[in-house]
Amino acid sequence: MSEIAPAEKETGRSEAVSDGVFAIAVTLLVLELKVPQLGEEAGGLELWSALLARWPSYLAYLVSFVTILIVWVNHHRLFGLIQRSDSRFMFLNGLLLLVVTTIPFPTALLAEYLEKPAAWVACAVYSGTFFLLALSFNAFWRYAAHRDRLMAQPLSAEQRTQIGRSLLFGPITYGIAFALAFFSVAASFGLCIILALYWAVAGFEEATRKA
Amino acid sequence: MSEIAPAEKETGRSEAVSDGVFAIAVTLLVLELKVPQLGEEAGGLELWSALLARWPSYLAYLVSFVTILIVWVNHHRLFGLIQRSDSRFMFLNGLLLLVVTTIPFPTALLAEYLEKPAAWVACAVYSGTFFLLALSFNAFWRYAAHRDRLMAQPLSAEQRTQIGRSLLFGPITYGIAFALAFFSVAASFGLCIILALYWAVAGFEEATRKA
Amino acid sequence: MSEIAPAEKETGRSEAVSDGVFAIAVTLLVLELKVPQLGEEAGGLELWSALLARWPSYLAYLVSFVTILIVWVNHHRLFGLIQRSDSRFMFLNGLLLLVVTTIPFPTALLAEYLEKPAAWVACAVYSGTFFLLALSFNAFWRYAAHRDRLMAQPLSAEQRTQIGRSLLFGPITYGIAFALAFFSVAASFGLCIILALYWAVAGFEEATRKA
Amino acid sequence: MSEIAPAEKETGRSEAVSDGVFAIAVTLLVLELKVPQLGEEAGGLELWSALLARWPSYLAYLVSFVTILIVWVNHHRLFGLIQRSDSRFMFLNGLLLLVVTTIPFPTALLAEYLEKPAAWVACAVYSGTFFLLALSFNAFWRYAAHRDRLMAQPLSAEQRTQIGRSLLFGPITYGIAFALAFFSVAASFGLCIILALYWAVAGFEEATRKA
Repeated sequence: MSEIAPAEKETGRSEAVSDGVFAIAVTLLVLELKVPQLGEEAGGLELWSALLARWPSYLAYLVSFVTILIVWVNHHRLFGLIQRSDSRFMFLNGLLLLVVTTIPFPTALLAEYLEKPAAWVACAVYSGTFFLLALSFNAFWRYAAHRDRLMAQPLSAEQRTQIGRSLLFGPITYGIAFALAFFSVAASFGLCIILALYWAVAGFEEATRKA
Repeated sequence: MSEIAPAEKETGRSEAVSDGVFAIAVTLLVLELKVPQLGEEAGGLELWSALLARWPSYLAYLVSFVTILIVWVNHHRLFGLIQRSDSRFMFLNGLLLLVVTTIPFPTALLAEYLEKPAAWVACAVYSGTFFLLALSFNAFWRYAAHRDRLMAQPLSAEQRTQIGRSLLFGPITYGIAFALAFFSVAASFGLCIILALYWAVAGFEEATRKA
Repeated sequence: MSEIAPAEKETGRSEAVSDGVFAIAVTLLVLELKVPQLGEEAGGLELWSALLARWPSYLAYLVSFVTILIVWVNHHRLFGLIQRSDSRFMFLNGLLLLVVTTIPFPTALLAEYLEKPAAWVACAVYSGTFFLLALSFNAFWRYAAHRDRLMAQPLSAEQRTQIGRSLLFGPITYGIAFALAFFSVAASFGLCIILALYWAVAGFEEATRKA
Repeated sequence: MSEIAPAEKETGRSEAVSDGVFAIAVTLLVLELKVPQLGEEAGGLELWSALLARWPSYLAYLVSFVTILIVWVNHHRLFGLIQRSDSRFMFLNGLLLLVVTTIPFPTALLAEYLEKPAAWVACAVYSGTFFLLALSFNAFWRYAAHRDRLMAQPLSAEQRTQIGRSLLFGPITYGIAFALAFFSVAASFGLCIILALYWAVAGFEEATRKA
């Protein structure tokens, strides 16, 4: 028992810090929403159209918010299966957090350039970040699940297949979004939006069904 | 028992992350308070009047702070009645957090435009955000309380009516504040101030009486 | 027992959110430290003197950091004596957090104006904020301690006198610092520095002695 | 037992606040990554090279992120050996947190000046901050471990030597990096990078071996 207790505590504190980083990253996104600076005499309709003209900011904000939240929900769900912790696992979790904390930067980049000729570069950086996020999420889980290394209970073959497949979906789709950026910004960013929506809806359904 | 334990943990972690988001959103508001940039030789009285001229910033800061805090207190109180969690509930809670984290933006917008001709648009966005906040708070609670879906104990008919009514108050009053923005900024923002004061005083009294 | 359990939980979550707000407020202070913007060709000594010229920023940063930390330590210590919570107590704790989250603003104001003619106004706002902080801390404690309202155990007469006296020290000294700002910036800010040092040293000693 | 329980709680809350500060400091780093401001007509390759030109920002970001994370992992590991808390310990922990929260400032400074003539000053401030971080980490640990003052269990002679030696490594190497800044920016910053990599790899290995 003296072995189990510290292990539980280990995971507990890792989870708490991860939660903190997710919560802060998601909240810092709002700092990228800038108030339009108009002249003193600008009227309401002028402000209204200045606000509307910033739709790329809001869209990028929303997609990033939802994506971080979904990663958090899944991080949460998978952590529920993990009992032990070791240093490499903490390292891989740290790598995941590194990508998560970086997200406000590509979000601001995309918001700035979405309607400009350089949009494809901004979009490649944006989807590329999500690609790295999906990769590090896979590394995080596969290390923990490999031969039930850090699991509370041995995974069933079905669980292992299901989670593994569902996690593979991320790098593949974001890899496609990244490649699309070089051809069509609309297709690349559109795929990121669809993925956020898909996970927000279908992903939650799936989680419900399993629970 | 193995079913109850994870459920409790589920809620616990959701509450912790929600608390984190509330705490960060409320603290980030201060970043909207900007130090006046005066000339090197500006005297004290000049700085003083520059500070006073920023009263819309302070007022918007205060109203947003109090409103977020009150939502937090109520979120806290209602979460106390909730035992279980599921994915849709986490989704609705996430939606609520999305609106909460957005609040620094309309707050900065209102502070910038409150004394300018475009004030009515800023005020509509501001009260409209609180309207969405109240709506998502209702969705959060009604999903959890529907047929005692996630409750620790069945709600009494009286509890159900009382909480339901008190929650309906939010969308209605902020809906009115939103509509008023198109006619009178003073009336719309004034209503937001009155609501913050009302909940800070009466709401707390009510909570005390019940506890 | 069903009465004690929720009360304990109540305080627990209030403490956790307060901790979050303290941690964020203290960390946001760093955003007020601005990197000097020099020409492309500026040499090392030029940067060095530009950095040194910002000493008011660093000093204001340090004093605010230490003051927030000390308030946190005392908040922590007094919360250790508190068992129950009610809505007015949460309101007073919220008021305290409002002042704490505001501190980055007067800190930036003082850093900007400490060496300019308007320094006395910046200094009055700075020390005035600490005065309000001390007042709200007194309200927080006196409400909880009044007739042992929310205490875990009845306070001894000695405890009551000692804590009460030690808490009164804050509003009095910061009130003096506030008044001094109108006569001498050096005296007013100097007193804030001395108080931070005093509490960092003597306050900690006192806490040690008692514990 | 009444003596042990509060002590455990004491450490628990200190750890939680420390975790919060680490999480926030690490997440705030991203605010130093600025979106390039190019003309409306700038093409993708122009944006791409503007992004690449900011490599000092990314490198400084990465090194600071990894360094804070490693300090956090070690803080976490050592806190696991600590059972009690006293006011001086909280003071030393506060000092450590002060240095941690400051890190975004030298990081932004280095990012701004790494390719300019003033780089050696920025680099001295950067490595000097890590030197202070290592010093305060040593003070934190040595105070707690001195004659097993705050330890859960007496340290073995081997543990004491190993941890003590490993902690001494920090001030020595960062002291060298600081001194190198006056001769070669590449050598000084290069050493900071190597140290971050070394701790990320070897440090984690060591932690694994011990656990």
